[in-house]
Amino acid sequence: MKTGIDCLLNPDSVAVFGVSEQEGKAGNSVVKHLLDGSVRFYGINPKGGTLFGNTIYRNVYELPEVPDLAVIALPAELAPEVTRACAKRGIGAVIVIAGGFGEVGEVGQKLELELKKAIAGTRTRILGPNTLGVLIPRLKLDTIFLPSSHLRRPKEGNIAIISQSGSGVMGALDIGAFYGVGISAFVGLGNRVDINENELIEYFADDPHTSAIGMYLESFVDAQSFVDVCRKVSPHKPLVLVKAGRSSAGAKAVALHTGSLAGSDRVTGGVLSQLGVFRAYDDEELLDTVRVLAHAKPLTGRRVASLSGGGGTGVIIADYVEAKDKGIAASLATLDPSTEARLAKVAVPYASVHNPIDLTPAASRDMFDSALEILQDDPGVDVIIFGLMYHTEKRDDYFTERLCYWGKQGKKPLIVAAIGSETTMHAIRSMEAAGVLVLPSFWRAVKAVDVLAQRTEFIRRVNSLRHVDSVPNSLTTEPVFVPIPGTPLAEDEIKAVLRERGISTPESILLPGGKLPAEIPLAFPLVVKIRSADVFHKTEMKGVELNIPDLETLEKTVAQMNLRFPGQDLLVERMEPSGVEIIVGLIEDGTFGLSIMCGIGGILAELYQDVTFRRVPINQLDADSMLRDLKACALFEGFRGINANREAVIDLLLKVSSFGQDLRGHIDQMDLNPIIVHEDKAVVVDAKLIWRVGTKA
Amino acid sequence: MKTGIDCLLNPDSVAVFGVSEQEGKAGNSVVKHLLDGSVRFYGINPKGGTLFGNTIYRNVYELPEVPDLAVIALPAELAPEVTRACAKRGIGAVIVIAGGFGEVGEVGQKLELELKKAIAGTRTRILGPNTLGVLIPRLKLDTIFLPSSHLRRPKEGNIAIISQSGSGVMGALDIGAFYGVGISAFVGLGNRVDINENELIEYFADDPHTSAIGMYLESFVDAQSFVDVCRKVSPHKPLVLVKAGRSSAGAKAVALHTGSLAGSDRVTGGVLSQLGVFRAYDDEELLDTVRVLAHAKPLTGRRVASLSGGGGTGVIIADYVEAKDKGIAASLATLDPSTEARLAKVAVPYASVHNPIDLTPAASRDMFDSALEILQDDPGVDVIIFGLMYHTEKRDDYFTERLCYWGKQGKKPLIVAAIGSETTMHAIRSMEAAGVLVLPSFWRAVKAVDVLAQRTEFIRRVNSLRHVDSVPNSLTTEPVFVPIPGTPLAEDEIKAVLRERGISTPESILLPGGKLPAEIPLAFPLVVKIRSADVFHKTEMKGVELNIPDLETLEKTVAQMNLRFPGQDLLVERMEPSGVEIIVGLIEDGTFGLSIMCGIGGILAELYQDVTFRRVPINQLDADSMLRDLKACALFEGFRGINANREAVIDLLLKVSSFGQDLRGHIDQMDLNPIIVHEDKAVVVDAKLIWRVGTKA
Repeated sequence: MKTGIDCLLNPDSVAVFGVSEQEGKAGNSVVKHLLDGSVRFYGINPKGGTLFGNTIYRNVYELPEVPDLAVIALPAELAPEVTRACAKRGIGAVIVIAGGFGEVGEVGQKLELELKKAIAGTRTRILGPNTLGVLIPRLKLDTIFLPSSHLRRPKEGNIAIISQSGSGVMGALDIGAFYGVGISAFVGLGNRVDINENELIEYFADDPHTSAIGMYLESFVDAQSFVDVCRKVSPHKPLVLVKAGRSSAGAKAVALHTGSLAGSDRVTGGVLSQLGVFRAYDDEELLDTVRVLAHAKPLTGRRVASLSGGGGTGVIIADYVEAKDKGIAASLATLDPSTEARLAKVAVPYASVHNPIDLTPAASRDMFDSALEILQDDPGVDVIIFGLMYHTEKRDDYFTERLCYWGKQGKKPLIVAAIGSETTMHAIRSMEAAGVLVLPSFWRAVKAVDVLAQRTEFIRRVNSLRHVDSVPNSLTTEPVFVPIPGTPLAEDEIKAVLRERGISTPESILLPGGKLPAEIPLAFPLVVKIRSADVFHKTEMKGVELNIPDLETLEKTVAQMNLRFPGQDLLVERMEPSGVEIIVGLIEDGTFGLSIMCGIGGILAELYQDVTFRRVPINQLDADSMLRDLKACALFEGFRGINANREAVIDLLLKVSSFGQDLRGHIDQMDLNPIIVHEDKAVVVDAKLIWRVGTKA
Repeated sequence: MKTGIDCLLNPDSVAVFGVSEQEGKAGNSVVKHLLDGSVRFYGINPKGGTLFGNTIYRNVYELPEVPDLAVIALPAELAPEVTRACAKRGIGAVIVIAGGFGEVGEVGQKLELELKKAIAGTRTRILGPNTLGVLIPRLKLDTIFLPSSHLRRPKEGNIAIISQSGSGVMGALDIGAFYGVGISAFVGLGNRVDINENELIEYFADDPHTSAIGMYLESFVDAQSFVDVCRKVSPHKPLVLVKAGRSSAGAKAVALHTGSLAGSDRVTGGVLSQLGVFRAYDDEELLDTVRVLAHAKPLTGRRVASLSGGGGTGVIIADYVEAKDKGIAASLATLDPSTEARLAKVAVPYASVHNPIDLTPAASRDMFDSALEILQDDPGVDVIIFGLMYHTEKRDDYFTERLCYWGKQGKKPLIVAAIGSETTMHAIRSMEAAGVLVLPSFWRAVKAVDVLAQRTEFIRRVNSLRHVDSVPNSLTTEPVFVPIPGTPLAEDEIKAVLRERGISTPESILLPGGKLPAEIPLAFPLVVKIRSADVFHKTEMKGVELNIPDLETLEKTVAQMNLRFPGQDLLVERMEPSGVEIIVGLIEDGTFGLSIMCGIGGILAELYQDVTFRRVPINQLDADSMLRDLKACALFEGFRGINANREAVIDLLLKVSSFGQDLRGHIDQMDLNPIIVHEDKAVVVDAKLIWRVGTKA
């Protein structure tokens, strides 16, 4: 028997409730679209009769068969009852189009509850309410009530689009359709009373018609499941997400640095990177990215050959490829001398055969054809961007045909950048139809290279992960010091816990009540700090004295501290020699749960906000990629003779992640700041921890 | 008498050399376009006869009048002779279409010389060669040989486009024309043997048909003139530039930090900002930016109200507005409670009247009309972005009309974001025709806000400049120490020069031959460095010892230095207390000449490359804007209680600029690095200077 999702996305028959003769009504346009389709159609209306020559049934029981799918094109208040009838009749899936549910307040929320009750204990699944429904061009299944005069329907293709909002992706689909972009499916999630994004990702992961999945979400129904399903799917099928609402996702309470640097969107970015899910910021970028991933050949490197028939075109492409300020990690390929010689032989005399290659507007189609052939053989070229200029009469259908040939048959990925009106649009449609990747701006074409390169990098990472222990546990022996969640921990207590996990901290002694012992078993220079589980900003309240050179100064300092903070315990610690300062933290994110942060420390770093996040637990490759995320990552690669041990930082991140994992659910925020990274080790100089409110003391 | 540029851009009559019956030839398509126009047309061909019913003249002398303009649609080798004849006959301007000149090597360069000679001593001016020529829709003057089937011609509008390359802007013009974008003029510069960008900017500055000027340039004919003309024009008429070829502009020799951080493109960016010239990176962005500046009402602030008929649309706009990572300095407006109340009254019950305002797809056109009216009254709203969704039948021509009304008549600037196929495109064309600013993506609409806000900021800066001394001279008394260009200067000598200009440096004494005097007239702690005019990397070669606490250590250090560098002069200096480290430098840029750099110092800053450039001389507002350019500018605004004197840095920048101005032409690079900025002053701790090679010693 078909599953509910199968009934929704691959139905043999569909019934529509609320069919109508009245133009402009949902029950009218949906019928028209479905009558055009290849799925058996039944119209239902209590009045019966016929519509467009089809028998109209009075209710679900009159239908000659149990349809796989029902579309309810009725007002919100009627939907629960009809859904109940569908469930009773054993229909696999129901689409509730109407708005006026959870999004409008209490009355609507009640209706949503009724919808859920209507299918409880049955096989029936609900898509929506408040949804455009589904569009499967392959089956000509189209439940979208918007007129195709206003919203063009994409043709059949190999990308699936899942969207929580109609308006969030409609514009891109509409103009995409105009350019001939195809889709395997569009599914509008609406209010998600039942079917959600995670099930759909799993469905499309197995769908042979789908090569890549694009999503627009304003929230996750279940972030844990989303993480699980993405982790499973993304190595096999590319995923792209617009996570909208990032500006309104309030930042975390800023008690600690980790909190102030988090902001839910930074964590989201880190987690998506960890999962190999691509990020887009609007509908246009979503469609671009998912198409790039679905269409282009995999990239082996980032060396771009630019080929065009106009100098300016090539220069703009070259500028974007090389300009590091635009965030593109690519470079212009250095062509082999033999490539240049061969190009010169086929080109007009004043063509430029250096990359960016400019064959000039005078170039014939055969010259371009030859150039594309020649570039296939250059081992220094990873990808070709073709800057299409369709503005001379030389660029005809045969020219397009040859481009399509090389796009399909060539060994190297080909990305076409084409900008222009009707003639260009005609060429774009031909290339789309041939499955050639074509983007309507230079910038979007260059971004495509970056997307493909990132995908290659992710797959490489996934493959190498198979040879790496997944998540190490840093606790090998029974811990001496077991933190009790909820009990405030002083700095030395946190450090004791960290040391048990193999994390370095400076040697220290505790001075209870601020009393100096007869002997100080620590080498100078030293540091004196007040010791409290409640004081987080020691420095600001003058509770820290650094660089104490000798016993005399130490005694003076301790005396001053005792005056300033009478009876307060003090901590005396060896002053850590200077090195590269970093910050590592843990934070309970509102969406993704416990997450780990790594960033460059110090005051400048705070200004540049050079930090990155991942979800706990992380593995070694996650830790490695965190370091590579940092703009100042060169600090760990011998920049200006600095010796900061990269492996020590990775080791530390894994241990902190493991610590977080063990105490998951209890930690709200933890700051290890600063951590000083030396040639041989990373030492945690200060540590703060805040338990989650509500955690039992 | 008309000037040559007038004859080119506002001719009464035009002659074409090389008219042809043969389809596909330049001399054929140009004739067709000109016959359609409103400028008197004369065809010339030695064969005579008629073409399309027009008499064809055999040569320039047979013409019944001296035309203002001649278009030479003949092969390169014939162009000089024909140009000579035109000059003799007194024709004001000649367009040479053919390629095959300077761009193809020696033979072509000779031909260019001949072209120049042909007009020497005459009133005749040349546009090109190797150019598309001009397109003035207002006059239906169109010398572009490309077929309009392949390259749509924009209609009449108020933006002028000047382009060095045809292909660099063609695509954007083509698709712009498709959407109904209008231009006052397009001028292809080609090889610029005569007419150049600077004259054209001046022409369009005075052209009443032009509201903003867009340019695509790969190089400047004369950077100094470009600077002069832009400085004059940009306060009155907005200028936008794609400066292409930025990736190939090799970086400067990296002897000093300033050089390694410059790269010609960073200097270009700083200079354009100084001149108030907007920067774009491709043809699409060029056309967007120049349209935004030509069409939209000026912005008074950056608070955006987003209005749409779909939740997703509003969320995407809000995310872009608020997300600081995308480089947009704007914010969502907080609507007045009375605004929200009024909106709620006119909207459907479940609309969201909080910003971003979502009137839902169910909203009628009257609801949108009312909402636009209501928003005009909210003093907290500076600009409205309308997220257009044309996908329901409710969005008809009347709806578009009301949008056009508010776009034209409303008090607040209105920017429409519209993405979609035919129906949307139809609406876009109507709005374009009505002069409403409409952009075909959410991101491009939000960027428009940033452009407008920057323009407002620039105008404000220009106005306040009227109350500020233009360029102060820091030398008030006769200098004691006059540097001789070409003579290497040691650190203490540069510092002596700086001190004469009122720049602070630490107290120091010179130890000739490394000999310690009997008494050290400096307070500890001290620094010892080797003193040489040739050694730039003292630290790397262990020629610097910091933080010397007392006389004993000093003696030991000097002794060690003497061993390490026998007979070398040493410098003993007071150790400057720590503070905010910055770097200031001078560099002779290949394009713009002497430029000044300001950046955050220290090793992290080097990694983050937080630097900015301006052309020397700078005024106080330039200096101020340099500080605001820095990502870490908060350091000078009391960030975390840091007291770094902003005014002292501005004063220092002005003095360094004045120093550079006095020695312009002689300096190659100068580094003042580090400079330590305290609460009361900025102190130059190290200084290096490299004279330009070829400067006489």
